[in-house]
Amino acid sequence: MSNIKKLKCLICGAEYQPEDIRYTCPKCGDEGVLEIIYDYVEIKKVFNKNFLESNTDHSMWRYLPILPIDEPDLIGPLQVGWTPLYEAKRIREDLDISNLWIKDDGRNPTASLKDRPSAVAIVKALELKEKIITCASTGNAASSLSGAAASVGLKSYIFVPQTAPVAKIAQLLVFGSTVFAVKGSYDEAFDLSIEATKKFGWYNRNTAFNPYMVEGKKTVGLEIIEQMNFEAPDYIFVSVGDGCIISGVVKAYKEMHILGLIDYLPKVIAVQAEGCRPIVDAINGDGEVKFVEPDTIADSISVGIPRNRLMAVRDVKELNGFGIAVSDEEIIKAIKYLGTVQGIFAEPAGSTAFAGMLQCLKEGKISKKDKMVILVTGNGLKDVESAKKAGGEALIIKPNLEAVKEKLN
Amino acid sequence: MSNIKKLKCLICGAEYQPEDIRYTCPKCGDEGVLEIIYDYVEIKKVFNKNFLESNTDHSMWRYLPILPIDEPDLIGPLQVGWTPLYEAKRIREDLDISNLWIKDDGRNPTASLKDRPSAVAIVKALELKEKIITCASTGNAASSLSGAAASVGLKSYIFVPQTAPVAKIAQLLVFGSTVFAVKGSYDEAFDLSIEATKKFGWYNRNTAFNPYMVEGKKTVGLEIIEQMNFEAPDYIFVSVGDGCIISGVVKAYKEMHILGLIDYLPKVIAVQAEGCRPIVDAINGDGEVKFVEPDTIADSISVGIPRNRLMAVRDVKELNGFGIAVSDEEIIKAIKYLGTVQGIFAEPAGSTAFAGMLQCLKEGKISKKDKMVILVTGNGLKDVESAKKAGGEALIIKPNLEAVKEKLN
Repeated sequence: MSNIKKLKCLICGAEYQPEDIRYTCPKCGDEGVLEIIYDYVEIKKVFNKNFLESNTDHSMWRYLPILPIDEPDLIGPLQVGWTPLYEAKRIREDLDISNLWIKDDGRNPTASLKDRPSAVAIVKALELKEKIITCASTGNAASSLSGAAASVGLKSYIFVPQTAPVAKIAQLLVFGSTVFAVKGSYDEAFDLSIEATKKFGWYNRNTAFNPYMVEGKKTVGLEIIEQMNFEAPDYIFVSVGDGCIISGVVKAYKEMHILGLIDYLPKVIAVQAEGCRPIVDAINGDGEVKFVEPDTIADSISVGIPRNRLMAVRDVKELNGFGIAVSDEEIIKAIKYLGTVQGIFAEPAGSTAFAGMLQCLKEGKISKKDKMVILVTGNGLKDVESAKKAGGEALIIKPNLEAVKEKLN
Repeated sequence: MSNIKKLKCLICGAEYQPEDIRYTCPKCGDEGVLEIIYDYVEIKKVFNKNFLESNTDHSMWRYLPILPIDEPDLIGPLQVGWTPLYEAKRIREDLDISNLWIKDDGRNPTASLKDRPSAVAIVKALELKEKIITCASTGNAASSLSGAAASVGLKSYIFVPQTAPVAKIAQLLVFGSTVFAVKGSYDEAFDLSIEATKKFGWYNRNTAFNPYMVEGKKTVGLEIIEQMNFEAPDYIFVSVGDGCIISGVVKAYKEMHILGLIDYLPKVIAVQAEGCRPIVDAINGDGEVKFVEPDTIADSISVGIPRNRLMAVRDVKELNGFGIAVSDEEIIKAIKYLGTVQGIFAEPAGSTAFAGMLQCLKEGKISKKDKMVILVTGNGLKDVESAKKAGGEALIIKPNLEAVKEKLN
């Protein structure tokens, strides 16, 4: 059995036991997102630096005592997590920043961070003896769930906006999912998937509906903490759509603090695109999230109704962070910069956090000496159209040396 | 300094010291591929099971004593290798095969096995104090070199056939390479890059021209050996283009055998597409490689003039392996099968080895009880067009439950 103590509603504070509840708080409806609270006293007995040092599991499951898994035997075969944290030496030199790290989470099985929560989702589905799993997604949650489901033999029904990048849809189909390409926004696909879940009784993995997804996402934070030798940075930059990844990162730090493994908490910065900045505006303003019509190239964070808004705004404020927005142009420029200077290939939402850091430097919100971590959430191969915008053009030549010389002059 | 004893020409047997030679044997011209021979007595003093067990470097560099590196400080930052070897439980069950492993080398930084040799190439370039590196490639060698070069600040000039998949070209451009998209075949791009190397004095990473590339590729074999606890399988299936990866795999086993770390050698099976099978025909025939006009969807192995042909044919024969060819249709079917049954997303050349294994089973060349390893060389995101052919179509629906119901019936 897991070390979960209770699930607590973010709105009314009602508490539930895991066996009594599946998704959101019945009193508050779909808005009543539940937060997982563990028995930290119990966890402390086994989970410490020694436990981690001697742990030979180089995947997200090395953190099993603080994950919501009852039956570890049901964990799927794909190797998720323990992605590289790069010191980004060339960017440090180029920008004269002394303390910069980049976590490349595009190195997961289906090439995005979302493999982490999806790996949790399939275990929960199997624990409940469910046979069909579903989700709505801008693309990455979908392809990660689809791959994870295939790896354990669960059937999957996936809802994506029809406009999702072709590479992400191609992944879903290769993994054998039934794919509903919805003529509408991600927000519409999300609502439809909840309706379908209620109608057909499938197991649902949607962000901020299924309470365990933040738990999967927090493993990226746990890894950063361990990879930085249990020292928190000053700032962590995270791109934000629904706001579930950023809450995962904050939860990692808060829990490691509770467990006495780190001494202080970092400031966590929410980065969104200018054309879709409801969370940024709420954090920097009165805390109220106003829904928007999204308009950005960064499809993974093109979310007008952020489902994890309450938790995300609370978390960033609690850690004294703030929000910042960047233009699509800066997002595209950041893709090229990360690729050219450091050899890291990010999708638009993946480069957004980096663009946000540059913006903060420019506005004097942070200093060049601060210790900073940038989270890259997905690989650039996920969205080749955007990569082409960033990369420019190849030189088309006839197969002879004269043609090469001509282009070099 | 590395433990290299000499470089030996495959054709005339002439021997060279590393400091005296850069590419092929001067006596035999570009055909005179050089093979790296180490001082195994020296290596044996440090390199054994204890060395590996206590090695905390989970990358290809854990095998440093048997790699051609003089200055380890020059190793680039990208984390290459130590990719998962999956037990493929669901495929085992589905096909009633008792002993099947799949090595997913699409989990490397730029999503292909080629990151391994490219990681070696940039160290050699830096050791020689070169500033510009070049290669010709069907796509993966190029994007891996491009990313690796960017990560250490080397300038790169890349030659690819204009027909290379857009995702691979997009990677090159994001990594800041100067990309020559040659109106012609890979074979023409290869010759042109050698000419340009001679003309402009760039450092060249071409397969079977640069003698160190097999060394990088062999690390995938070293990992398989260690991940299988120093027991060789009966068969390893490897897709073949130039024939450099398969020679790398064979060299890994031969060297681990020389070093006393494994007891016997596996049979290594060369798999090619029916529309491009010069190596397969040579192995199964008189050993002579006849050049062909390639015609296959598997772009990474669409090689009519295999540059490492002599070594590849020798290696497969020496280990009592054989060749097998599969149709493009079977390659596409294998993409879908690997995705749907095991959650592994392969590019066409990546699924080719699996299709070859199925073909061998069908023809009775192997038995269902044999211990088999399949090498998946690249991720499916590299070639979305082929993935779309494999995956089928999404169900396009209006955002309402009625539309979902209709499609489910």
